[in-house]
Amino acid sequence: MTGTLVGVGVGPGDPELLTQRAVRAIREADRVLAPSSAVDAVGRAESIVRQACPGVRIERLVFAMGQASGSVEDAAQVVVAGLDAGQQLAFVTLGDPNIYSTFSSVAARVRELRSDAVIETVPGIMAFQELAARSATVVLRDTERLALVTALDGPDALAGALADPDQAVVVYKGGRHLPAMAKALASAGRLDGAVFGELMGLPGERVVPVAEAAEGPAAYLATVIVPPSGR
Amino acid sequence: MTGTLVGVGVGPGDPELLTQRAVRAIREADRVLAPSSAVDAVGRAESIVRQACPGVRIERLVFAMGQASGSVEDAAQVVVAGLDAGQQLAFVTLGDPNIYSTFSSVAARVRELRSDAVIETVPGIMAFQELAARSATVVLRDTERLALVTALDGPDALAGALADPDQAVVVYKGGRHLPAMAKALASAGRLDGAVFGELMGLPGERVVPVAEAAEGPAAYLATVIVPPSGR
Repeated sequence: MTGTLVGVGVGPGDPELLTQRAVRAIREADRVLAPSSAVDAVGRAESIVRQACPGVRIERLVFAMGQASGSVEDAAQVVVAGLDAGQQLAFVTLGDPNIYSTFSSVAARVRELRSDAVIETVPGIMAFQELAARSATVVLRDTERLALVTALDGPDALAGALADPDQAVVVYKGGRHLPAMAKALASAGRLDGAVFGELMGLPGERVVPVAEAAEGPAAYLATVIVPPSGR
Repeated sequence: MTGTLVGVGVGPGDPELLTQRAVRAIREADRVLAPSSAVDAVGRAESIVRQACPGVRIERLVFAMGQASGSVEDAAQVVVAGLDAGQQLAFVTLGDPNIYSTFSSVAARVRELRSDAVIETVPGIMAFQELAARSATVVLRDTERLALVTALDGPDALAGALADPDQAVVVYKGGRHLPAMAKALASAGRLDGAVFGELMGLPGERVVPVAEAAEGPAAYLATVIVPPSGR
């Protein structure tokens, strides 16, 4: 008898953005696991699930800052113990479980420890989709292209993507570099129409033009959309 | 008194992939409009909504092949008449309403006709997210990048995006060019891990490696994911 691990995307913040499939996966699970920065801290995914699926008990998996590999190992051990006991485990994660998600690291380690593990995922709405909706931004039309990048290595990732006027650019995790990104957008003539969002669906949400947000740094999980300029 | 137009993303095919917000927008609307290729043809979005929201009446807006601008004008006229009557209109659309959606064209024309129209959107799961889930493909990790392109102008859009080993490439609407795309992937050493999906969540669904699907052309709305090769 062997269990199942399901990575469930819960979207960026609004509990109404869970899909029906996500709600079902959470409700049907024997145990629901959520990443958290500390054992007594309610993480963002847990907060969303508490609202979307009232009454569901959530266990925290601690992912300590700067101790990524140890945290992944600990989480994988919890999962493997559950799978060996035949349990159905739902691992809830912000956005989509196959795009920049901690879930991928945990699943990869579980796969190393149990090569026959059954591992599935349920897609989730990504932050930039919600930002597009909230800001009335058409991301792509016709044969336009999208570049999705992170600014974890600095604002240069954005500069290279701006050369193509028919390419929309989405930047994740660029809060720290927002002033530098605004400067790069202005230089490239792409500041107009560029939008910024943080804490979407959460208290303190901010959705504004990049030009208005660029006076200081923003939250780590900030999102920027730069629409194509060649329309 | 003025109405509201809401573009509602219904995902790629499985009715369980509607979000709670999408279901609510459809249920609360006075009228639900769905694009269709003929007045007596049930379009894909209509089919999804029939399953996800049983009992909801759906009106078809005909988008005839090769008559795009006339169809958009006709649809906008239907919408404007509804808005002027104070109705809440839900326009359902495959995937996400801000990414390669007919909704954007209709909304833009409605905005020209009624500059003060209230137009909103509800995000939807995109086909590539469902393909990633069904094929157990991790699209992005760490600081990897994503290029989302269409093959409407031919398979060359893919070739240019393959040079960067840390970039995942998603190709939409490339069914016709699948054999050529497989050849380009093989030349670039990127065929391994590349997955193909069509009719996801619908009868006849196919989710297979590109290498297995490339013997002939596929459906128009096919999706290909090429994961990063630099892992």
